Amino acid sequence: MSAEPASATSRMKVVVCRDLGPDVMPLLRARTELDVVVWPEDRACERAWLLEHVPGAAGVLVMLSDKVNEELLDKAGPTLKVVSTMSVGYEHVDLPALAARNVRLGYTPDVLTDAVADVSVMLALMAGRNAKETMGVVQRGEWPNTSWSPFSFCGPQLSRPSPSSTRTAGFIGFGRIARATLARLVPFGITHALYTTSPGSAPSPAQDAQYTRQFSLTSVRRAGSLAALARGSDVVFVLAPGGAATRHVVDERFLRQMKRTAVLVNTARGTLVDAHALARALREGWLWGAGVDVVEGEPAVGSAHPLVQEPRCVVLPHIGSATTETRLGMATLAANNLLAGVFGEAMQAELDLKGRT
Amino acid sequence: MSAEPASATSRMKVVVCRDLGPDVMPLLRARTELDVVVWPEDRACERAWLLEHVPGAAGVLVMLSDKVNEELLDKAGPTLKVVSTMSVGYEHVDLPALAARNVRLGYTPDVLTDAVADVSVMLALMAGRNAKETMGVVQRGEWPNTSWSPFSFCGPQLSRPSPSSTRTAGFIGFGRIARATLARLVPFGITHALYTTSPGSAPSPAQDAQYTRQFSLTSVRRAGSLAALARGSDVVFVLAPGGAATRHVVDERFLRQMKRTAVLVNTARGTLVDAHALARALREGWLWGAGVDVVEGEPAVGSAHPLVQEPRCVVLPHIGSATTETRLGMATLAANNLLAGVFGEAMQAELDLKGRT
Repeated sequence: MSAEPASATSRMKVVVCRDLGPDVMPLLRARTELDVVVWPEDRACERAWLLEHVPGAAGVLVMLSDKVNEELLDKAGPTLKVVSTMSVGYEHVDLPALAARNVRLGYTPDVLTDAVADVSVMLALMAGRNAKETMGVVQRGEWPNTSWSPFSFCGPQLSRPSPSSTRTAGFIGFGRIARATLARLVPFGITHALYTTSPGSAPSPAQDAQYTRQFSLTSVRRAGSLAALARGSDVVFVLAPGGAATRHVVDERFLRQMKRTAVLVNTARGTLVDAHALARALREGWLWGAGVDVVEGEPAVGSAHPLVQEPRCVVLPHIGSATTETRLGMATLAANNLLAGVFGEAMQAELDLKGRT
Repeated sequence: MSAEPASATSRMKVVVCRDLGPDVMPLLRARTELDVVVWPEDRACERAWLLEHVPGAAGVLVMLSDKVNEELLDKAGPTLKVVSTMSVGYEHVDLPALAARNVRLGYTPDVLTDAVADVSVMLALMAGRNAKETMGVVQRGEWPNTSWSPFSFCGPQLSRPSPSSTRTAGFIGFGRIARATLARLVPFGITHALYTTSPGSAPSPAQDAQYTRQFSLTSVRRAGSLAALARGSDVVFVLAPGGAATRHVVDERFLRQMKRTAVLVNTARGTLVDAHALARALREGWLWGAGVDVVEGEPAVGSAHPLVQEPRCVVLPHIGSATTETRLGMATLAANNLLAGVFGEAMQAELDLKGRT
């Protein structure tokens, strides 16, 4: 025992709610001044285990599934300096409770922008091109008996079909992921973009002119209303934050205003879209198709869910950020945020908790 | 009968092997100097019907499924001026037999470039992001019982994950569709492109420099060999013509040389890829995933086909050009080619048959 560089009592404890793999865990384990306690199983951390191990911890690294509330913070006690979440969202964290205790919060924004923009473009293409229906034809062994016809399986084309036509992409929310998605669509021949942002922010013609130049489009502008965005868009991307303010921003009213040839993509939060209204809209042809990576109430979305039943609705199990590169980036950032918090250094991505009390 | 503008005998007969729908058929039916004979069913034209109606025709409009051979041309007789095919390929047409009879051939190139480029990008994304596996999880009702983990479902990211990294797209064949595909990939952060063309054509550093500027990449260059393209690419697009010269250009040897994190996309012709070698490669992890819109022997590709069985292989039933806009464009072009051929005018897209005898 005398060979140990520091005794367990003099080392600071950090509790890690998930093994982050052989590329990231050494960042933590190499720090001999830390006592690194890791949930040992390959599934979500059990609450009882977390509450048992968190007392006296200087830092906790959590996932979206781990609630950071008064209970956890009380158990941790006054030693706690930092909570680091491996997520861009922080709905699972009680921000005022953290602020009241002067505990810092690290998170992982930006690093997943490209991965989510990629999936957004993929779903826009899949929704228009009947990917679910046509893959199903092949998987069920129906290809040999499917007779070709000039317009079978035909959906709307994302690419502009001729130089004289137009294509408008609509964005509910116009943050980093939305702009990265729009950038990817430019060479498909998108000509116009419409967007909405939080109702509080003022329209800015100067900003719109700057966006128009940046993306080399005919125009990028803030839509006068959600209805105008619904009516004017060939593809609508839902990329706003979740929460009460944006709940069901895509509802029956919105869906009825969409073009019958348009597609809807949601890669943000399930709560933004009224799933039952969307299923009905697809069934009745108010729009052409949809692709969603997130669904209200997920993961309790079984095979009988109305969206899962719709042949024109691609449903993915929330894999927006699931690329090896991005998840490694998120895990590395979460580990580094934890270290910076524990050692009192500047964090690479810290949420400002001022005014959250 | 005297009210008819021209008698059936004085009108020129055109035989159309498929109803082209309410947007295109009027182009033909409006020409009172033509006797338009249309296969009445919504399935591939029966050979016996075609042979029965073609004698004395001035023009025939065919699909890929209709063989244009000596038999058909003999039946049509010396009145035949034009064959118009609603396809970019002409494997079904005996070119020397046409040339020998001075019959012109219209086809529909270019108009499907964007639709196929869109599907090529879609399949590259789907292959990397495990779209088939993850959609399957949802459709089979397994989402509620799938526990999240930091690296579950993670595949390679098409987008460049950081400004210091690189991404190389490889193209077997570098015609219009390949270049339209590359253009779409630029904002995903692709940095390099490699391509091969027909073995006979000489490398051109000046052309490569021009491509490099055109696409704003670090480099676009002709690969020294197929092996160099396989080894260097993060995503390989098969976009060469079919036929004996390119049969199994992607074989076991090629697949073994690919990066283990790379994906393969085939939106050209099934014969270019050895399907059994690809299935084995996916099973054994020589590459990450694949997306194919075409398979050797299609449409005789049932649910037991080894590629259909592979969870990392997306198989689509040859829908590359299947968008409403593109198929309308192809049908319109085929109708106009037919008219131009019948009336001895310049065709919008005519295959030069000189030297084909």
